[in-house]
Amino acid sequence: MLWACVMSADFFNETALVLFSGGQDSATCLAWALSRFGCVETLGFHYGQRHAIELDCRAALRDGMTSVDPGWEGRLGESHTLDIPTLGAVSETALTRDVAIEMDKDGLPNTFVPGRNLIFLTFAATLAYRRGIRHIVGGMCETDYSGYPDCRDETIKALQAALNLGMDRDFALHTPLMWLDKAETWKLAEDLGGAALVDLIRDQSHTCYLGERGARHDWGYGCGECPACRLRARGWQQYRAARAAQS
Amino acid sequence: MLWACVMSADFFNETALVLFSGGQDSATCLAWALSRFGCVETLGFHYGQRHAIELDCRAALRDGMTSVDPGWEGRLGESHTLDIPTLGAVSETALTRDVAIEMDKDGLPNTFVPGRNLIFLTFAATLAYRRGIRHIVGGMCETDYSGYPDCRDETIKALQAALNLGMDRDFALHTPLMWLDKAETWKLAEDLGGAALVDLIRDQSHTCYLGERGARHDWGYGCGECPACRLRARGWQQYRAARAAQS
Repeated sequence: MLWACVMSADFFNETALVLFSGGQDSATCLAWALSRFGCVETLGFHYGQRHAIELDCRAALRDGMTSVDPGWEGRLGESHTLDIPTLGAVSETALTRDVAIEMDKDGLPNTFVPGRNLIFLTFAATLAYRRGIRHIVGGMCETDYSGYPDCRDETIKALQAALNLGMDRDFALHTPLMWLDKAETWKLAEDLGGAALVDLIRDQSHTCYLGERGARHDWGYGCGECPACRLRARGWQQYRAARAAQS
Repeated sequence: MLWACVMSADFFNETALVLFSGGQDSATCLAWALSRFGCVETLGFHYGQRHAIELDCRAALRDGMTSVDPGWEGRLGESHTLDIPTLGAVSETALTRDVAIEMDKDGLPNTFVPGRNLIFLTFAATLAYRRGIRHIVGGMCETDYSGYPDCRDETIKALQAALNLGMDRDFALHTPLMWLDKAETWKLAEDLGGAALVDLIRDQSHTCYLGERGARHDWGYGCGECPACRLRARGWQQYRAARAAQS
């Protein structure tokens, strides 16, 4: 399995800025960065999304991370949040209005915010520029069948080139989850921080599109019905099944 | 001179979205677009910049354009403005604070907002996506010696590729002023709309970094001392000298 061969590069003298929404993927990316970089800052965005609760989970996850591995506590740096209200206004999709989550004519979920990750990464680069940070980490992946063009490896690579040209910098955009499905993402968390990290992400990260925390499932909290919950649930079940098969 | 050979492509069945700040360059781009596209919408940004007066000039310029050429009136479509307050907050340069305009250690004016044009063009693409528009027009140019990496031709071309990948679209980013200096930009305006357009842009467009309109010069209104005013003044003088030499 490819993830077992992930290169362990040593960036202990360098700082990373992690795009950190408080969801499962970005929480895993935070742990991945803490295991490699001497200093890790986080950046979340507020743009009127219905699951703004993700941002509340960020604090709990950050605090929990420092207990997962003794080496990580001293590495966790500042938490940043940027407001981009216009992103919600100009897109007007289910993420920022109360409409049902459906597929639109392009076959994409109407939670699709065109170019959202491009905006996120460009603002991240602006912040990284100001703070002298070179490494930016994002949880984009191609494998979760969501069809988002701004999650594709080719897109992120092209954007890195455009950002470096446009800011005369040498940013490195890291996407450790690009080729992992949700089950493999849980496994990566286990490899990075054992059961403690898996439990932390399961209990404190937020995925549900409806912004619900109330219902407790094996895989964490959420409505259990929206596409995001279903994807998360399936990934968890696959991860647990693979784990049980190894026992 | 290269500008005399500008290709006159026929986009009369298509719509363009012009990045329109109310400055000399974007006003010229608006005229350029009106001469070619069947419908032209404009997009301005508000991000706490000191010369927010540029945005007030936009209405006057739009109204004036419809009188320059009888064919243009029916083509001028909607005016959009997007708020990006975070851009000013995260950058904190002279454009959004009351500090003197100086050169920083990179040799760039401290009015430099890293990646600003990347942000503008990405939001423009998001809006264009929503409105079914393919053509985006910006007034970036390499020739005004400002040293901004996000004005370079290579940057804009790389960004076009990233935007198209990231939004699964076929956007065309047009930069009609890329190889023109300020004198040639005035000449382009004259070619597009004669003395009427030149006068309109001179009187209604805003360039001055200090947001001043009060002082009247040959080249328009402004403080006359900041780098932007000096550049504009010099370009005007060169344009007028070339014009006089031809008479």
